[in-house]
Amino acid sequence: MTRRTDQLKLGAFLANSGHHVAAWRHPLAQADASQDFEHFKAIARSAERGKFDALFIADVVALWGHHLDALSRTARAEHFEPLTLMSALAAVTERIGLIATATTSYNEPYHIARKFASLDHLSKGRAAWNLVTSVVADEAWNFGREQHIDHTDRYQRAEEFHDVVKGLWDSWDDDAFVRDKASGRYFDPDKLHTLNHKGAHFSVRGPLNVARPPQGHPVLVQAGASEAGKALAARVAEVIFAAHHELPAAQAFYQDIKQRAAALGRDPEHIKILPGVTPFIADTREQAQQLFEQFQALIDPVLGLRLLADTLGEDIDLSGHDLDGPLPDTPPGQRGSRRDQVLQLARRDNLSIRQLYLRLAGGNPVIGTPSDIADSFEQWFQARACDGFNVFFPYFPGAIDTFVDQVIPVLQQRGLFRLDYAGSTLREHLGLPRPANRFSTRAPA
Amino acid sequence: MTRRTDQLKLGAFLANSGHHVAAWRHPLAQADASQDFEHFKAIARSAERGKFDALFIADVVALWGHHLDALSRTARAEHFEPLTLMSALAAVTERIGLIATATTSYNEPYHIARKFASLDHLSKGRAAWNLVTSVVADEAWNFGREQHIDHTDRYQRAEEFHDVVKGLWDSWDDDAFVRDKASGRYFDPDKLHTLNHKGAHFSVRGPLNVARPPQGHPVLVQAGASEAGKALAARVAEVIFAAHHELPAAQAFYQDIKQRAAALGRDPEHIKILPGVTPFIADTREQAQQLFEQFQALIDPVLGLRLLADTLGEDIDLSGHDLDGPLPDTPPGQRGSRRDQVLQLARRDNLSIRQLYLRLAGGNPVIGTPSDIADSFEQWFQARACDGFNVFFPYFPGAIDTFVDQVIPVLQQRGLFRLDYAGSTLREHLGLPRPANRFSTRAPA
Ligand SMILES: Cc1cc2nc3c(=O)[nH]c(=O)nc-3n(C[C@H](O)[C@H](O)[C@H](O)COP(=O)(O)O)c2cc1C
Ligand SMILES: Cc1cc2nc3c(=O)[nH]c(=O)nc-3n(C[C@H](O)[C@H](O)[C@H](O)COP(=O)(O)O)c2cc1C
Repeated sequence: MTRRTDQLKLGAFLANSGHHVAAWRHPLAQADASQDFEHFKAIARSAERGKFDALFIADVVALWGHHLDALSRTARAEHFEPLTLMSALAAVTERIGLIATATTSYNEPYHIARKFASLDHLSKGRAAWNLVTSVVADEAWNFGREQHIDHTDRYQRAEEFHDVVKGLWDSWDDDAFVRDKASGRYFDPDKLHTLNHKGAHFSVRGPLNVARPPQGHPVLVQAGASEAGKALAARVAEVIFAAHHELPAAQAFYQDIKQRAAALGRDPEHIKILPGVTPFIADTREQAQQLFEQFQALIDPVLGLRLLADTLGEDIDLSGHDLDGPLPDTPPGQRGSRRDQVLQLARRDNLSIRQLYLRLAGGNPVIGTPSDIADSFEQWFQARACDGFNVFFPYFPGAIDTFVDQVIPVLQQRGLFRLDYAGSTLREHLGLPRPANRFSTRAPA
Repeated sequence: MTRRTDQLKLGAFLANSGHHVAAWRHPLAQADASQDFEHFKAIARSAERGKFDALFIADVVALWGHHLDALSRTARAEHFEPLTLMSALAAVTERIGLIATATTSYNEPYHIARKFASLDHLSKGRAAWNLVTSVVADEAWNFGREQHIDHTDRYQRAEEFHDVVKGLWDSWDDDAFVRDKASGRYFDPDKLHTLNHKGAHFSVRGPLNVARPPQGHPVLVQAGASEAGKALAARVAEVIFAAHHELPAAQAFYQDIKQRAAALGRDPEHIKILPGVTPFIADTREQAQQLFEQFQALIDPVLGLRLLADTLGEDIDLSGHDLDGPLPDTPPGQRGSRRDQVLQLARRDNLSIRQLYLRLAGGNPVIGTPSDIADSFEQWFQARACDGFNVFFPYFPGAIDTFVDQVIPVLQQRGLFRLDYAGSTLREHLGLPRPANRFSTRAPA
């Protein structure tokens, strides 16, 4: 395989006290970070100092977790709403991209088009929308529904939602606003376009009351692993947030998506695939492993068992079993499902209940020295398993500065990462083209 | 009447190039302000330097105006979305309140509760929600409806929407998040409250995934002049954005609202009534009048006639009439309506068509020297026609600095306005109590 000449794309994932589920308990972590804007500002500035492509924030429009005893042991019950937080961060950063998550299942396209257009203007071309379809029924209950929209409908709605948003972003030609004081003409009426969308899920007239975003369209990010999810990604995603932990599976996904995109006439280079990874970094491998173990040891069994039960299915009751004994016999689930994968893993590695939940809770860690981390990034990148990473920092503050001070320079020395931002918009950082306006009769610039 | 011992409350109204409809054409105004965050940041900082209580931004969720020839002569076709803009401004200001408009007619309460709670945390207690019910059918068309929700339904929906939002803000006790690293307990499950709202318009389970806002509830602002509007205001508003131009009408409204509030058991001091006013300031009255005339002269007749026709009713065609002649005979509208008021005004003052549209376009100007402006503010305040003002600046930048440098000191010398912020939250600036949590069993702090 030829050595790649492009460079890694890196997202810095925001989380309150850190990405590790027990991070907030660790002495290095700030426990009351979730309501502290100064904390997020410091993270954003560290990420920008490290020349990250973007900040990334996930979202759920509900308090997620019914088992209060477990939920009350995490820092997940409170967090800033993504669009308000990213707008505030736009004002205190200069170059870094801002990827905010918003669901198509419980929103209206006009609001979403408008808020992201507004964020793109506020940030001078640094906005991105992570289009998700929502996963938990708790969200439905906050929006007048008894149950979550089913998977097929959800993706159909997402497709149409996406198309409406893009159409609204094209409401104005890039040069519609002439603002000619002498003639008194503020905009050219011929450069205004009314969408008049009428579809199965939405009826949206338009136009948007925000000028065309600086990026043309804010960058479109997507995450979804099903057939419908991949089909949507291949058609519209410019960044994919992936969740693979194993190299071969990541390579297969990468190849699949790029081929689908090419088959649809897209340039495969215009989709950047970024799996999530959590680096635990220290001067020696032993110290890094110890750091990881420290975090793992802070996971309360109540929480650990809950994570395991959620993965295996709500019906499984593990209380009363010896944590250091094996999993009880459990009926297999759907073939290839997450549940089955986990059961296989437990059998293959002969894991106790505690060991199994610690594996799940540990996520996708890379543990080692700065050059170990760089090696792992390089291996995945060169093996075409990804185009970069969404970096989950185990704890905040601190872990991002360690990464920026120790790993980024190694990646830079190897020519794998930028020495400085070359452009000013997120599209420029990512090497993505600026989309033409669908309504415009002129050739794209 | 006894002299008031309290002080004026002042809102600084954001507008792109200024509040005057032709502002953008004036040499003093920045024409391309609408997409320029630095411009809004400078305005916000000037307002904070002037110790204003809050910034205020209106909103419409549509491109408003069907007559493109007229619309294209205004700067109103593009503007930042309020919640994203105010979040960004939160990050670059320290003390000033942030009043963002959001409609109850085309939103979901969970999103609104969450975004304002998030803004209140981001700004450390400076958020306010201007609850509006929307006025134009264009908004309905962007949200899957053929026509605007009718007035009665709109207010019923608004009432319920409001109640749900307040309930969601009380999802957590103020001290729910204990974050005890030693025990591993992040929050106290007994201090979490699930709303379980099921009503005529909304079914919202809750709880919110944002901690209780620093202000308990962001400040509630309202604007609406009908019986239903006033009833809602008397029950829930803490600030009322009023639109009276004449002292007696303003006094009557003021007394009406305060009495209604008292009848509902509220302290009338806990509703601040702020009419909008546009100051044109110069060293002499003649210069101030000239400044005003300069702006008026920039109103294109196409735009002026449109404003007039919109007020009198879409059916009226004034093209072909002599602009400097009288209004043609027009059938009267509903008694007491805006249309009738305008027809009476034209008859009473014997105005030509041009003079009439200039009156309408001029809004509610106060024209004079800094001490004239202060006199006018003092007169309204002492006559209990208001508790302060929403100041509309005719042009940006510039007009706000003139106000801050020349009018604020006069108000301060007269003891009518604060020398500095005494508190840090908007509630503290406005002298409003922090609401208790409806679910909490403990006594309010
Ligand atoms: C890596 C990854 C991250 C995701 N992040 C979010 C998120 O932040 N919010 C959300 O509501 N859904 C999120 N999702 C859920 C997806 O939008 C989608 O609803 C879910 O994966 C089910 O679709 P699928 O069957 O195509 O995977 C995420 C999914 C993946 C794989
Ligand atoms: C001074 C004032 C300001 C208003 N600002 C807005 C606004 O920014 N956005 C909006 O949609 N409606 C706005 N409204 C409209 C009101 O929310 C309401 O829909 C309208 O006044 C009709 O209700 P009413 O008959 O009670 O006055 C405003 C109304 C007034 C009086």
